[in-house]
Amino acid sequence: MRTVELGLIGCGTVGGGFVRLLEKNRDAIRARHGVDLLLRRVAVRHPDKRRPGVDRGLITGDAREVIDSSCRIVIELVGGTDAARTYVVHSLGGRKHVVTANKSLLATAGRDLHDLAETHRVRIGYEASVCGAIPIVRVLREALAGSVVERIDAVLNGTCNYILSRMESERVPLVEALRAAQAAGFAERNPALDLDGTDAAQKLMILSGLAFGDAAQCELTVEGIAAITLGEVMRARKKGKKLRLVATASKRGEVASLRVAPELLDPAHPLAAVRDEGNGVVIAVEGAGDITLYGKGAGALPTATSVLSDVVEVAVRG
Amino acid sequence: MRTVELGLIGCGTVGGGFVRLLEKNRDAIRARHGVDLLLRRVAVRHPDKRRPGVDRGLITGDAREVIDSSCRIVIELVGGTDAARTYVVHSLGGRKHVVTANKSLLATAGRDLHDLAETHRVRIGYEASVCGAIPIVRVLREALAGSVVERIDAVLNGTCNYILSRMESERVPLVEALRAAQAAGFAERNPALDLDGTDAAQKLMILSGLAFGDAAQCELTVEGIAAITLGEVMRARKKGKKLRLVATASKRGEVASLRVAPELLDPAHPLAAVRDEGNGVVIAVEGAGDITLYGKGAGALPTATSVLSDVVEVAVRG
Repeated sequence: MRTVELGLIGCGTVGGGFVRLLEKNRDAIRARHGVDLLLRRVAVRHPDKRRPGVDRGLITGDAREVIDSSCRIVIELVGGTDAARTYVVHSLGGRKHVVTANKSLLATAGRDLHDLAETHRVRIGYEASVCGAIPIVRVLREALAGSVVERIDAVLNGTCNYILSRMESERVPLVEALRAAQAAGFAERNPALDLDGTDAAQKLMILSGLAFGDAAQCELTVEGIAAITLGEVMRARKKGKKLRLVATASKRGEVASLRVAPELLDPAHPLAAVRDEGNGVVIAVEGAGDITLYGKGAGALPTATSVLSDVVEVAVRG
Repeated sequence: MRTVELGLIGCGTVGGGFVRLLEKNRDAIRARHGVDLLLRRVAVRHPDKRRPGVDRGLITGDAREVIDSSCRIVIELVGGTDAARTYVVHSLGGRKHVVTANKSLLATAGRDLHDLAETHRVRIGYEASVCGAIPIVRVLREALAGSVVERIDAVLNGTCNYILSRMESERVPLVEALRAAQAAGFAERNPALDLDGTDAAQKLMILSGLAFGDAAQCELTVEGIAAITLGEVMRARKKGKKLRLVATASKRGEVASLRVAPELLDPAHPLAAVRDEGNGVVIAVEGAGDITLYGKGAGALPTATSVLSDVVEVAVRG
């Protein structure tokens, strides 16, 4: 049995979920894939904090100890772009594979990181960076490898969708729905990047890169839901429509056109069926029609599921 | 640029679609994946028949000429189990990768063929054998590689779904809806294997093997839609329900339990949204909730899309 050592940087909600999921499924992965995934080191900002389920002996306050350890795969779950970028660059430069859930890092530095990974002949997995448990990166990169994607329409931000769903069903204004989202653990303490459409736009850029290639010129317009009133939601409801924050990408010639904006959808529209904190993606494929995927877009275990799938794939293929 | 030579056995609806799709997307695949896919030889039963879009010089009446050619990948699109099995066994034995859309072959001989491929260090791709354009094989095999699948519920037979949809919307009896399905090109001339649930059961066995492993003991019950009356469909409609041929797989201990049967679904059930010749799959993943996929379950180009994705993957990874 081949052992593949893992290093984890960041052990918050998703990182903690990853440690639990790995522990639970390690035997099954050994049996199914013939690799033993061994967590070797875990870097956190506050090493003294209690973390149930995480072996204290693995913890360090210094991310370099993870990167310089004997691990083959570094799992970056810190988020943000500054420190995270340094960790990922050092890891790739040290010929470690990287698995990350960091959408803002991928959206801003994806091309450079891919090039760096190629130079050092290692891989970078980022399934968890978009749409939580939905394997959208894999579907675009592999399942549609021989096809032409014409267009993507998606609900990519679970927080906004939860807020719009809640405003509609409970007839509450945005601030109250936002508070409910925070209480339920979906929204960040500072939800500005969700509400103004930035989060959805970053995810859309990742999907567009996969579908249309990075070479394409890119036009992006973003409108969030921060200004949506209860009156608008109620008028939509009266007309039998659903209000959703829709992210759309299409390509004409060499120009990829990306747009994030609230839209009024017919109830029969596939994205009208995305409820609460869910995500949904409709991929229009030339000749093959629409392929639609739904699933949980956020949360510790859905996101950890995608992290672990990347870890297994990288570990198996080396 | 690396050239990868392909041999095709069978050039009917899906095979013809594959040749057209390959021709159309060959340049894009070269640019994106750095491999040039070159169709080297095409075996058909009637070599003299006109096949628009297929170079006559590639055609042969003898499948062995394809298998013994210099091709690296043999694409088997003959269907059935007798000749197809021989072709696939000879191809794998000759150290050719195989890509197939043959569900009955996979359902009956999958384990042996996988073992044979492993022995000869080649790969067998069969994304196109289940659910046309929906990348369900890839999702179960790779995206959920680190996860535990609890249950699968699916609409796997597009012909039955078309018939049930048509009976409901047009108030016509089964025979008439079947005739419409045949006229639209969805149903075989002999649709017995669709109507009696065999086709759905074969696909479900493939999905169950991917989700639960082959080692599990397997219990299978199958009921088709051949005996469904217009009265039943209309009574369902009156109650606000949808009648669907549902395929379900779950696992308890070491026993996988597989069931295909017509079911009355609430309109909010995710499989109630599968219309006409569509397919849909709901995968319940431990901790990550449901992942749902919809798409065209049949047709030349949707199926050829999945064949080509396997070809590209095998060609790129070698």
